[in-house]
Amino acid sequence: MRAAVARPSAKPTKYEQVAAEIVGLIEAGTYRPGDRLPSVRKLRSQRHVSITTALQAYYRLENQGWVEARPQSGYYVRSHLPSGLPEPEISSPGPDPAQVSIHELVMMVLQDAQNPRLVQLGAAIPNPDLLPTEKLNRILATLARRAEPVGNQYDIPPGCEALRVQVAQRAVASGCNLTPGDLVTTSGCMEAMELSLRATCRPGDTVAIESPTYFGILQSLESLGLRALEIPTHPRDGISLEALRFAIDHTPVRACLITPNFNNPLGSLTVEEHKKELVELLSREEIPLIENNISGEIYFTAERPGVAKAYDRKGMVLLCSSFSKDIAPGYRVGWVAPGRFKSTVEWLKYTTNIGAAMLPQLAIAEFLSSAGYDHHLRRIRRVYALHVAQMAQAVIRHFPEGTRLTRPQGGFVLWVQMPERVDSLMLYRQALRSGITITPGHIFSASQRFRNFIRLNAAFWSPREERAIETLGDLIRATLG
Amino acid sequence: MRAAVARPSAKPTKYEQVAAEIVGLIEAGTYRPGDRLPSVRKLRSQRHVSITTALQAYYRLENQGWVEARPQSGYYVRSHLPSGLPEPEISSPGPDPAQVSIHELVMMVLQDAQNPRLVQLGAAIPNPDLLPTEKLNRILATLARRAEPVGNQYDIPPGCEALRVQVAQRAVASGCNLTPGDLVTTSGCMEAMELSLRATCRPGDTVAIESPTYFGILQSLESLGLRALEIPTHPRDGISLEALRFAIDHTPVRACLITPNFNNPLGSLTVEEHKKELVELLSREEIPLIENNISGEIYFTAERPGVAKAYDRKGMVLLCSSFSKDIAPGYRVGWVAPGRFKSTVEWLKYTTNIGAAMLPQLAIAEFLSSAGYDHHLRRIRRVYALHVAQMAQAVIRHFPEGTRLTRPQGGFVLWVQMPERVDSLMLYRQALRSGITITPGHIFSASQRFRNFIRLNAAFWSPREERAIETLGDLIRATLG
Repeated sequence: MRAAVARPSAKPTKYEQVAAEIVGLIEAGTYRPGDRLPSVRKLRSQRHVSITTALQAYYRLENQGWVEARPQSGYYVRSHLPSGLPEPEISSPGPDPAQVSIHELVMMVLQDAQNPRLVQLGAAIPNPDLLPTEKLNRILATLARRAEPVGNQYDIPPGCEALRVQVAQRAVASGCNLTPGDLVTTSGCMEAMELSLRATCRPGDTVAIESPTYFGILQSLESLGLRALEIPTHPRDGISLEALRFAIDHTPVRACLITPNFNNPLGSLTVEEHKKELVELLSREEIPLIENNISGEIYFTAERPGVAKAYDRKGMVLLCSSFSKDIAPGYRVGWVAPGRFKSTVEWLKYTTNIGAAMLPQLAIAEFLSSAGYDHHLRRIRRVYALHVAQMAQAVIRHFPEGTRLTRPQGGFVLWVQMPERVDSLMLYRQALRSGITITPGHIFSASQRFRNFIRLNAAFWSPREERAIETLGDLIRATLG
Repeated sequence: MRAAVARPSAKPTKYEQVAAEIVGLIEAGTYRPGDRLPSVRKLRSQRHVSITTALQAYYRLENQGWVEARPQSGYYVRSHLPSGLPEPEISSPGPDPAQVSIHELVMMVLQDAQNPRLVQLGAAIPNPDLLPTEKLNRILATLARRAEPVGNQYDIPPGCEALRVQVAQRAVASGCNLTPGDLVTTSGCMEAMELSLRATCRPGDTVAIESPTYFGILQSLESLGLRALEIPTHPRDGISLEALRFAIDHTPVRACLITPNFNNPLGSLTVEEHKKELVELLSREEIPLIENNISGEIYFTAERPGVAKAYDRKGMVLLCSSFSKDIAPGYRVGWVAPGRFKSTVEWLKYTTNIGAAMLPQLAIAEFLSSAGYDHHLRRIRRVYALHVAQMAQAVIRHFPEGTRLTRPQGGFVLWVQMPERVDSLMLYRQALRSGITITPGHIFSASQRFRNFIRLNAAFWSPREERAIETLGDLIRATLG
């Protein structure tokens, strides 16, 4: 604990010590401006000092301007603190990205997403204006006010039945026959994928993945001690089945984690015939397929794309999804249909965190049962397709010659290849200084390929983002000299 | 998918196939009584059949009594289904516990907790009447109605600041100086412990634990590929420091996971002097201490017991807790103060599920900032102490001679040692048949010791539980012959 009060060189008295400790706690944010401090009596028992010492400590702090006494009420941290305060806890742009590890860089990109001063072209967060937050919160409030005890009970795997019924009904409607008994609810899609990896692999095993792939998947593999085998992936058509077949023939692959609908960052789409082939290929080799369908509802195609799980005859596909991209990132509700690995996934869900929070699951189940969900999906499909197209136009206008760009079939991110000489990590750092966050390309690969690529979040589109694209273009040109 | 419709031996027609598939979905619970089925137009596009075929399928189902047509509205699953339905999804007592694995047994004990027909002496669930569910839900409802976008955003580690401020303030008040910056929020205490294990150990490492210990900890160790080194633990005074010292001297121990305040199932309490010694011993050897304090607030002693973390000088203690035992099992909100492992824990939290749900965290933070929390804690400490004493009295009255019983210093479980000849697994099975769930002793040890022990949840106490204790006593006597 840092003590900011200047001390005489002599040993501080007891009350000076107590005062210094309280200053430390104020500086560290344990007590915030306006917070009530412990009463003199409480301070006495907490610190094992006399009433007099406790009082003297507060007098000292009052004199130094740290606290104020309010009659009949007690001591409070002053709202206008003296200068010399520490920096806010999460600073931005934070440490120099050139000197941080990949872990730290990933955490920085994520934390940028919580900084309202930055133009959000980094993390793939949905546009808050395109979330039905008010409706969902209203449902949650109504459920909470009903105050049935079920909302405050442990939710044991497989988890909230009302939600599993809704998910099964929607799966059937989109051509994949699932029953509530096939499903396990999770705290988001990332958890669904991690549970699936843990259910199918042991540390040291190799998992085939698309290249590039979402950096969270790579971090999850690393944290579980799994090896990533990167399979060439076409920016529009998805993973190369030929390359996958070759890889399986030459490497012992324990599982395969793929995003057939709208790989992040590519926005690629694997056509139905290839999904079927993919499942048949892997099933023949008894290799489980972990299918990430988090953005499956945000399609720009005329027809809703199916899932590989629909072709699963042997229970070898673990279909993972959540509601984080389309309606509720903050609710942390997802699910997995783990096939023959279901009992292991349930057990792992229990050892991970027992179960998911109940009320958010119930609220989402109720929203799903209303016509509002489909209406909402139709709207965001239109708007995100438009935003992606608008941002793509701007990239074309403002980025230098030699730039290449994806044609996303769904989702809301763009993947941009810049001339070889551009270092996306340096560009990330420069962009931050201009108040813009982007995601540097090399965190989308275990071997840190894609050093001249960036991913852009196209969920937001306004003159502010257009100017940001222009600024990025200028920064890239400056690099090229 | 099972098809329950009797088929002629000839190949079924297309509409018979569609009808059979819908029956399968009704039987599996994807469509429930009263649910609206897809419109004829939707069915056509989902199943790639003609309108006529879709209509014929529904006529057939109507004739067979599965569905009913409602004018202007569509087809619905009939509320009064024909007989021959499958059993409810989660049956009880379920498969014969004698033939299930430890994993399955653990999941059965947990699922028993959701069966309202059973007397709940099994899982350590709090008594719903002793949870401030209404108050918490009211706060949640108000927060949700305010509908600020923050409630529906990804909550990136370290997680919800308002909650971390409250936890830090309470820690300071109980003698452990923590700042909001020291904390990471989690989805419950189990997650806090698992993240701590993953941050400090690699698969194959050995973790020293109390014997007996909470079965969830053992399951978590197993799922992570860690070895459990069981240290003798006194039923009242907690882990034996001598035995731990000896173990460390003779085995490479990578971490130590201990519950100094109210080991589950013992209810033991490690005195302050021993907590200090424990931290010093482990810090000297650079062995991280994962401290489980989930029941720390439910103490029966005159003074609030401290935490080992308070003696941590080197950032080697990872203090884990949650609000699941005292206020909100269903909210899944916990935290960890991971010391020097903080950045690794943050990264692992991200790879596990990105972050915890936001609104439940905000609601708990607000409840903690009110006087209501302390008032509530004072009440449950009194009531749980009383229930534990009452159940202990009943055990003394009804169990046979040779029974031994803990004297819990906090929490709300009792640990009962029965005569050697009693098999707690058989007793669990017999008790289920009598409508009572208990926890068999051997799941509290990695080596399946404690075969003649049971844990009793004393959170509930009424004539119903008293009769259950009497029944258990009779069953044990019958075993002894």
